[in-house]
Amino acid sequence: MGLLLLIEGFFIGVSSLVSLYYGEYDFNSLILTSAICILCGISLILLTNKAEKNIGKRDGYIIVSLVWIIFSIFGALPFVISGAIPSYTDAFFETISGFTTTGASILNDIEAVPKGLLFWRSLTQWLGGMGIIVLSIAILPMLGIGGMQLFVTEVPGPTPDKLHPRIKETAKRLWVIYIMFTLAETILLKIGGMTWFDAVNHSFTTMATGGYSTKQASIAYFESPFIHYVITIFMFIAGTNFTLSYFALHFKFGKVFKNEEFRYYLGFVLLFTFAIAFVLWHVDGFSIEQSIRDSAFQVISIITTTGYATADYILWSPFVVVIVFALMFFGGSAGSTGGSIKIVRITLLLKNSYQELKRIIHPNAIIPVRINGKSVPPQIISNILAFVVFYMLITIASTVVISALGYDLDTSLGAVAATLGNIGPGIGRVGPVENYAHIPTFGKWFLSFLMLIGRLELFTVIVLFSPSFWKK
Amino acid sequence: MGLLLLIEGFFIGVSSLVSLYYGEYDFNSLILTSAICILCGISLILLTNKAEKNIGKRDGYIIVSLVWIIFSIFGALPFVISGAIPSYTDAFFETISGFTTTGASILNDIEAVPKGLLFWRSLTQWLGGMGIIVLSIAILPMLGIGGMQLFVTEVPGPTPDKLHPRIKETAKRLWVIYIMFTLAETILLKIGGMTWFDAVNHSFTTMATGGYSTKQASIAYFESPFIHYVITIFMFIAGTNFTLSYFALHFKFGKVFKNEEFRYYLGFVLLFTFAIAFVLWHVDGFSIEQSIRDSAFQVISIITTTGYATADYILWSPFVVVIVFALMFFGGSAGSTGGSIKIVRITLLLKNSYQELKRIIHPNAIIPVRINGKSVPPQIISNILAFVVFYMLITIASTVVISALGYDLDTSLGAVAATLGNIGPGIGRVGPVENYAHIPTFGKWFLSFLMLIGRLELFTVIVLFSPSFWKK
Repeated sequence: MGLLLLIEGFFIGVSSLVSLYYGEYDFNSLILTSAICILCGISLILLTNKAEKNIGKRDGYIIVSLVWIIFSIFGALPFVISGAIPSYTDAFFETISGFTTTGASILNDIEAVPKGLLFWRSLTQWLGGMGIIVLSIAILPMLGIGGMQLFVTEVPGPTPDKLHPRIKETAKRLWVIYIMFTLAETILLKIGGMTWFDAVNHSFTTMATGGYSTKQASIAYFESPFIHYVITIFMFIAGTNFTLSYFALHFKFGKVFKNEEFRYYLGFVLLFTFAIAFVLWHVDGFSIEQSIRDSAFQVISIITTTGYATADYILWSPFVVVIVFALMFFGGSAGSTGGSIKIVRITLLLKNSYQELKRIIHPNAIIPVRINGKSVPPQIISNILAFVVFYMLITIASTVVISALGYDLDTSLGAVAATLGNIGPGIGRVGPVENYAHIPTFGKWFLSFLMLIGRLELFTVIVLFSPSFWKK
Repeated sequence: MGLLLLIEGFFIGVSSLVSLYYGEYDFNSLILTSAICILCGISLILLTNKAEKNIGKRDGYIIVSLVWIIFSIFGALPFVISGAIPSYTDAFFETISGFTTTGASILNDIEAVPKGLLFWRSLTQWLGGMGIIVLSIAILPMLGIGGMQLFVTEVPGPTPDKLHPRIKETAKRLWVIYIMFTLAETILLKIGGMTWFDAVNHSFTTMATGGYSTKQASIAYFESPFIHYVITIFMFIAGTNFTLSYFALHFKFGKVFKNEEFRYYLGFVLLFTFAIAFVLWHVDGFSIEQSIRDSAFQVISIITTTGYATADYILWSPFVVVIVFALMFFGGSAGSTGGSIKIVRITLLLKNSYQELKRIIHPNAIIPVRINGKSVPPQIISNILAFVVFYMLITIASTVVISALGYDLDTSLGAVAATLGNIGPGIGRVGPVENYAHIPTFGKWFLSFLMLIGRLELFTVIVLFSPSFWKK
């Protein structure tokens, strides 16, 4: 934890250099917070140096949850200290929305925020994305969360039986890919006409499927179709299992297209893109090119839980709004930076429900669910089903909570689906051209909590509230 | 099937007598349809007399689905022949909405419909309710649908190992209770100031948790609080497993209160009644008595999937609308006439999700889910989870379909939840003071299909669409 605080301090320090370069008023707040993080980090390391080095499974849950919370607690400081976001509640909301790669914002005038802070804001998402890659590919499978075990075998590592070196090696390889993609996108966006600053920031938040923009109007600010296409492609990549990107970059395309999750992901994207494009062209009277571009952008932005906007989809046909709402529950692939339920779970649910029909007809036959040619153990199916049920229960109960603050069904459901799924903009009064500033303080803390449990695959956090967790 | 058509013919004949008594124009249409049903029934019996008497499990699914469809096809005739509902689509919608005890109506002026037809309309719900009791307590457990096996052991029968006499005996006992409750409610409603005609019709549709009223304004037409309380209590009874009513009438109250599904049912009703009553009293400024009365009426009307209205709940606080919407997915108890997901499944889901947390902490322990002190086999849990997932998938996919007809999210989701859950009125443009008349033809057939699959516990119908069902 101490080490992680040092890392956070380092990146806030980097942001302060950006501030220095632009000569804006946020430098002091950034350098001060950087110092606080580094001091706290060093103190923690010194204090706990002699402590036990063995980390148990239970400690794993606590550490994972704490990392995101502590990062957000410290990460919110520059916003408050500089006065850019005077309320700590708002600053915390904005920061945890960053680290969880959600992208739900309370800023009413993003362009007025100094560039150092905007850079830090984008960086929270990029770091959150890095965290999620390690978490989902290396740590959650160990903790047995929501069927994540399924992907352990897929990670290419030189020593599959020794855990520690494999995690380190896997993380290193995937981070290299993550950084390469970020660089590639930055260059392409610069070519498309963005400033270097905008290009870097948008690359950070694309690869993290975060969705923070440096512009109040989000990607709609940039009129170049080239920029829209570049971002669409990189959002799609960011929503793909990074292990598959690793294969693709080693020209093993066969492995990519044989992967069932990827095929379903591609299938869903194509299906919904064409469905919405048809409506935009036929009903809303867009040109064919614009229909496909806007539709692909919006579908991929929502399914990957990025949350960028090139258009106010709430104003499109109600049919589109309903599809967008449904897409909020899909999410990216497992092992990507995308949130929400995730394609592999949806795929297994669909397969299992189909198999259940066979089981009803042949009650004595053992009919397994298969993915990538291997049959999935029933306890993993049961775990995934429980995950989805929890997801739905939390969605319904939280919608009731938000509606108690006086919001209508669309807004309540939209805000909950968009934060729990780490998407960002929802529907209703938290749609793509609005934001979360008008939500009361209690609501902001509540939604922050939803972002956290959504990002950490529900069980990691919920398990902490279970009495049996704390029993020896 | 022939025998069932005779029965339908008989009841349409009874309705024609009501018409004769009031001397309205619908007599001819009713007596003609009655004759058609009886003729078809006799023909079917004569034609199939020599056929095989062994009914297999597969035949079971086909017969169950066909019964509801054929009943609705014939039952719609009087409305069309009399001219009261000129379109056959509308008449079929109204009739299947009756037999599935949904209560979704296309009538814009119920009081203008002659009394014989109104009586037949209420009777479709009452007969549908009778059908559902046998189906859920005797037939579905045999077919292995959605955890219904759980309740087989609870049915009090003299010969538990011989199937045929037990079904007959169980059905007889429960129908006696059903008829007794209907009589009791009729008398109480008459005492409360209703005409005999209104009292009988409303008792029919209360006990079936159907919700058809003889008044356009539904129960709001009757101002007497006594009537509201009577209907509230009988809706609650109709949403309880009829086996428990059997015990209660034999003074075995211990058995009733030991039943976990009943306890959760009562718990949910009390919780949501008080939550909504508090809002009505505190925010909407109702008196305490009216808050509790309106709240209890509405909560029980929705949770039991009856669908009566004493108020336009859409105009209440958004918080109430959200709770009402959530309640649409609860449903009555298994073995009641209520539809939707049902309390026992919700209960088992909650318990299983809670146990899953323990399983994550202790991955090697076998942690069963228990209900009524007995542990539930994992394959039943898996079946129930698949049921709920199917329910959600159908809800989302159907919402997209309805929205493609041009309806907004509220209306689309409301119409789907209210028909699939056999409730009747939804939210948005199919709320309690509106109806389904404005839905296009395709939408009406689609929603009719949803009512059917919702009523027959999804799998019974869906299984027919599975290729493996038709393979030998």
